[in-house]
Amino acid sequence: MNISLPIAITMGEPSGIGGEIALKAWLRREELRLTPFFLVDDPNRLSSISSRLDWNVPVEIIDTARDALEVFPSALPVLPTNLSVPAIPGQPRSENANTVVESIRRAVGLVLSDEAAAVVTNPIQKKTLYDAGFDHPGHTEFLAELARTTTPPIMMLACDALRVVPVTVHQSLADAIRSLSKEKIIAASEQTIVSLRQDFGIDRPHLMVAGLNPHAGEDGSMGREEIDIIQPAITHLKRLGYSITGPAPADTLFHDRARESYDAAICMYHDQALIPLKTIDFRSGVNITLGLPFVRTSPDHGTALEIAGTGAADESSFVAALRAAASIVVNRNASQQAGHERIFRLAP
Amino acid sequence: MNISLPIAITMGEPSGIGGEIALKAWLRREELRLTPFFLVDDPNRLSSISSRLDWNVPVEIIDTARDALEVFPSALPVLPTNLSVPAIPGQPRSENANTVVESIRRAVGLVLSDEAAAVVTNPIQKKTLYDAGFDHPGHTEFLAELARTTTPPIMMLACDALRVVPVTVHQSLADAIRSLSKEKIIAASEQTIVSLRQDFGIDRPHLMVAGLNPHAGEDGSMGREEIDIIQPAITHLKRLGYSITGPAPADTLFHDRARESYDAAICMYHDQALIPLKTIDFRSGVNITLGLPFVRTSPDHGTALEIAGTGAADESSFVAALRAAASIVVNRNASQQAGHERIFRLAP
Repeated sequence: MNISLPIAITMGEPSGIGGEIALKAWLRREELRLTPFFLVDDPNRLSSISSRLDWNVPVEIIDTARDALEVFPSALPVLPTNLSVPAIPGQPRSENANTVVESIRRAVGLVLSDEAAAVVTNPIQKKTLYDAGFDHPGHTEFLAELARTTTPPIMMLACDALRVVPVTVHQSLADAIRSLSKEKIIAASEQTIVSLRQDFGIDRPHLMVAGLNPHAGEDGSMGREEIDIIQPAITHLKRLGYSITGPAPADTLFHDRARESYDAAICMYHDQALIPLKTIDFRSGVNITLGLPFVRTSPDHGTALEIAGTGAADESSFVAALRAAASIVVNRNASQQAGHERIFRLAP
Repeated sequence: MNISLPIAITMGEPSGIGGEIALKAWLRREELRLTPFFLVDDPNRLSSISSRLDWNVPVEIIDTARDALEVFPSALPVLPTNLSVPAIPGQPRSENANTVVESIRRAVGLVLSDEAAAVVTNPIQKKTLYDAGFDHPGHTEFLAELARTTTPPIMMLACDALRVVPVTVHQSLADAIRSLSKEKIIAASEQTIVSLRQDFGIDRPHLMVAGLNPHAGEDGSMGREEIDIIQPAITHLKRLGYSITGPAPADTLFHDRARESYDAAICMYHDQALIPLKTIDFRSGVNITLGLPFVRTSPDHGTALEIAGTGAADESSFVAALRAAASIVVNRNASQQAGHERIFRLAP
């Protein structure tokens, strides 16, 4: 893995905004000094978006990932894969699901074989993939399987002002509460610490752990999860020598001054992490998958089918995902040269 | 009720920061053009805070609330009540609980008898009051009883940039989910609409209703409360002619541009409302009780026992509570003169 390699971008849902944001980012490559990237995509799809929107992006087919470095300054490099039916903006079709999945598989293969520096995934339309027989709950689980990791990856959301790691993610809030456990909090916290060191270059990271209940339960008077689950996890992590505090009332953790007191907040459920992140920075949040043996980031939004094809999609989060990936690659390389821990989760 | 009347301030926990923030606000009365206020408090307590901190605030005992108007420019007016034992900062004592409760009772009596314009309550220490036999879950329920309202009051939290109304409040998150109902959402929304019209002068308020689950449940795939409870409440309210949208994914509702699209957000649980509010404005949030037959606001923080007596307490939220109370009084008066609905909850 080397930042002298290009970043691989997956196609994502071809009827969504993935192609548009990649084209828009490429058009700003000089202004933003972007690391070279290439798409694993159908070149006809990308050319037709460009011409329909009058963006004049030259799309160039490449044979190997490495060719992207030479092509990138003058054209958008594409490692070709073919859609079964033409992609109509806003209208996903299950006939194309295999190509979407194949794009992910190839991008991961390239980063695992050291031909690409990192993977940035474009958003997929889960239901369309499910209809075609895709049997992973989501992107991240599929990536974990491709990478043959044994522990579940952890999702970090980051913007310039805040990093958050939800311990539970895509399940109902009631299920999230029921499934919360000391073990999950410990696993998410340890993985976050490893990542803050290796991926963000923070030697001695400090974690802040949010409570689950209002006022962090107020000594058990409004819920016992803080006493029974969260505090024991924190105590365990402290005994291991980690710098960690909490459980703190979640509503006190995210204003300017509070954010200065930690490097990442460990959150108990999806919205506890996402509400503050998107309140602070709605456009440039990035999703970073921790615990994979390669660098993977993605924009923090969906396929936006309702605006696909119009050119209105905002590329900020995609650009932030590219930048985060490049920065993490640099930090991981430096960390590995310094002989730190391996990039995936430490064995207990 | 008339803004030509002073605002009554309750003592709150006498070992907390209530006295300090009131003294600090009084010192800034000219700079901030504050509406005259008076405390229902022990004058010795306030004098001793002032002299211990070298603040030189003259404390003047008044006989009637109305006297506060004349006294306020030159001294802090206090309608006297006596503590049983001296209040030591940071060390609440149940011997003083009756005086704390009596201060609330008198302030409410004065506003109900049109001697004060509004009540701003200082934070209380619930456990100390419970130990002394106080049998209301909190401030708001006690005020509702004093006012003999039949429907439970609703809490609104407000800062300049955002108004939020949590449908469930001080209970564990699991209990909040279990207790969520169509009826509660409707009651909170209707009360909020009445208040936005009467208290905030917004003729045709627009409400945004948050979902409960991540991504607002994503069509039932991550929780069914949106389908079974929240959407039916919204449909009911729309049929009544109210301007209301949702359920929307909670993490998309609170960034700058999203906030421009509604006058208040109806939230499903405490932290869903409080996280964005305190992330945006940690110092100047105000708690406003809707559904009482008088105006009541309070600072959006607790007794802060750990810093009581040091003078470090920030008066911003107290000042914001004073200002909100004065502004609501003006708007309610205008609304009543215009023959609008009564200030408490409309009968269905």
